Amino acid sequence: MLENTDRTELSSLGEFGLIKHLTEFIEIKNESTIKGIGDDAAVIDYKGKQMVVSTDMLVEGVHFDLSYVPLKHLGFKAVSVNLSDIYAMNATPKQITVSLAISNRFSVEAMEEFYAGMMLACEKHKVDIVGGDTTTNKSGLVISITAIGEVNNEDLVYRDGAKEGDLLCVTGDLGGAYVGLQLLEREKRIFLETPTVQPDLGGNDYILERQLKPEARKDIPVLLKKLEVKPTSMIDVSDGLASEILHLASQSEVGCNLYEDKIPIDPQTYNMAREFNLDPTVCALSGGEDYELLFTISQEDFPKVKANPDITIIGHMTNKKEGVNLITKGGTSHPLTAQGWDSLLNKNE
Amino acid sequence: MLENTDRTELSSLGEFGLIKHLTEFIEIKNESTIKGIGDDAAVIDYKGKQMVVSTDMLVEGVHFDLSYVPLKHLGFKAVSVNLSDIYAMNATPKQITVSLAISNRFSVEAMEEFYAGMMLACEKHKVDIVGGDTTTNKSGLVISITAIGEVNNEDLVYRDGAKEGDLLCVTGDLGGAYVGLQLLEREKRIFLETPTVQPDLGGNDYILERQLKPEARKDIPVLLKKLEVKPTSMIDVSDGLASEILHLASQSEVGCNLYEDKIPIDPQTYNMAREFNLDPTVCALSGGEDYELLFTISQEDFPKVKANPDITIIGHMTNKKEGVNLITKGGTSHPLTAQGWDSLLNKNE
Repeated sequence: MLENTDRTELSSLGEFGLIKHLTEFIEIKNESTIKGIGDDAAVIDYKGKQMVVSTDMLVEGVHFDLSYVPLKHLGFKAVSVNLSDIYAMNATPKQITVSLAISNRFSVEAMEEFYAGMMLACEKHKVDIVGGDTTTNKSGLVISITAIGEVNNEDLVYRDGAKEGDLLCVTGDLGGAYVGLQLLEREKRIFLETPTVQPDLGGNDYILERQLKPEARKDIPVLLKKLEVKPTSMIDVSDGLASEILHLASQSEVGCNLYEDKIPIDPQTYNMAREFNLDPTVCALSGGEDYELLFTISQEDFPKVKANPDITIIGHMTNKKEGVNLITKGGTSHPLTAQGWDSLLNKNE
Repeated sequence: MLENTDRTELSSLGEFGLIKHLTEFIEIKNESTIKGIGDDAAVIDYKGKQMVVSTDMLVEGVHFDLSYVPLKHLGFKAVSVNLSDIYAMNATPKQITVSLAISNRFSVEAMEEFYAGMMLACEKHKVDIVGGDTTTNKSGLVISITAIGEVNNEDLVYRDGAKEGDLLCVTGDLGGAYVGLQLLEREKRIFLETPTVQPDLGGNDYILERQLKPEARKDIPVLLKKLEVKPTSMIDVSDGLASEILHLASQSEVGCNLYEDKIPIDPQTYNMAREFNLDPTVCALSGGEDYELLFTISQEDFPKVKANPDITIIGHMTNKKEGVNLITKGGTSHPLTAQGWDSLLNKNE
């Protein structure tokens, strides 16, 4: 995706020149941002609210493959996955800092694309880029983003508040990002074997977008407030549904029954999973990168969420000693594991 | 420095296992840290104070060489250089997040050493590690740390407040970290050529410590408060005195006269620079990594700082149109540049 047309070498600008070039159009959007880029540190004023801080690191060759991920999408995604953690606290993201280690394989134009994607996400979420560090890397691109958000004390939702009997809910649908990745990897393999063949990605916009341009659920804290529902626990789905449920259950010291037939899976995800001979349920459980929100609510809040198209109830919390189980479509109960691939792929049901 | 005795592979713990293992002894030191590691985000309560945020990224092979930097020192330094930015705002650091990309060349024991160094610095500065991300890297180690501090609005010091006539001050002494690095690199070259020769580092503890284990100037904001001096501008010396003076001057829109004979250089730095045929002044101007604080004060505050052994007055700010100049020991004036190496090395004085 790195074109060599109009290539400006990073070294031609130097570190300060590059930062200035990439950040000169950044405009401050939040009152709480007193001072952004340009000093030893940014200054933020939260006027008595609490702030939440989260950080994520993305490494080329581990978290992304630039042979099929455009840099603009990568910038958008790098910001989105961080903001997702802030929403998972039921908070509102306000600022980010961005640190990049860049090899000289990248041109200034390539980094402009990356920044354009980041700024698109910042625009969408009304977030300010308030600082960062830009350095050389010996090979590849490493991205480290720290997101800062604000929240009223009474709205904060941790992972450890789920109670026995609480309902387990998830937003949107699951497994799409993983199936989208399979599709991109298949087309990459075909391209490497036969470079003249054009990639066949048509008609799969939804799952490709789930993988390449995930949307952090900005709308959910707002929706929950409107519905007057405060979740008892919440986490975002970055590593796969199974792993996240295990986090909530273990930190809340409860068990959980998850119902396979309730897991929301988009038809496009379902069909493409089948085409790859993958179990769509396994894609949802272990695929990850969906960046939906998984949360528990008290049973008395059930009427408030039951008709909502953005929220699906997929299970309920049980006593800790019952463990965390998947109740399959066939009605049998399997202990859920974060490394659920092998056991589930071989479950023969 | 990586011993193979008692080696535990990173893969044997997995990401969550490694984080748990490395962070289980972290104890919260600050009231403002409401929630540390273990959720989607940390929660921080600043109760009406302003917070400052700074971030730095360190890349193996670019910022450090593990063939002569012990991992424990590296952990200490990685934290210190971030806290230095917080002190440069006249603020007090309170929390950090730590993201690491680690190749499987490192063992669990090696990362324990790194964490031990980080925790030593955190202990010294009473800072909480409140979050982070740990991921695989294809090669080498990348460290990204974000530091958060607090400050009363009236105590904040930016880079852009220096006025014509203000005095330019620096803490401690300069050039030592750079000369220490030259010494380490020389001994590494000798070791690579003749592995049986033991490194000759004796008697150079001070400059080695300046390079390997720099101390962020925690004491200076406290001292300034005690002296009732509020600097008009401040920055930390990470890239070298010349570069930092140029930042203060350009952001404050003033000029500066820096007096070569006033620049504080330790005798050990001076002598070792001479041994390497380096101009000690150039080491101070362009060496960097000293992590001292450079600041400007109003002339009327002169009596308050003049007798202080931690502070040296090295120049004064002038009208912008006079530019930024080094007044040499010989009394001549040279325009100062951040890339001051070549011109200064050839100044023949």
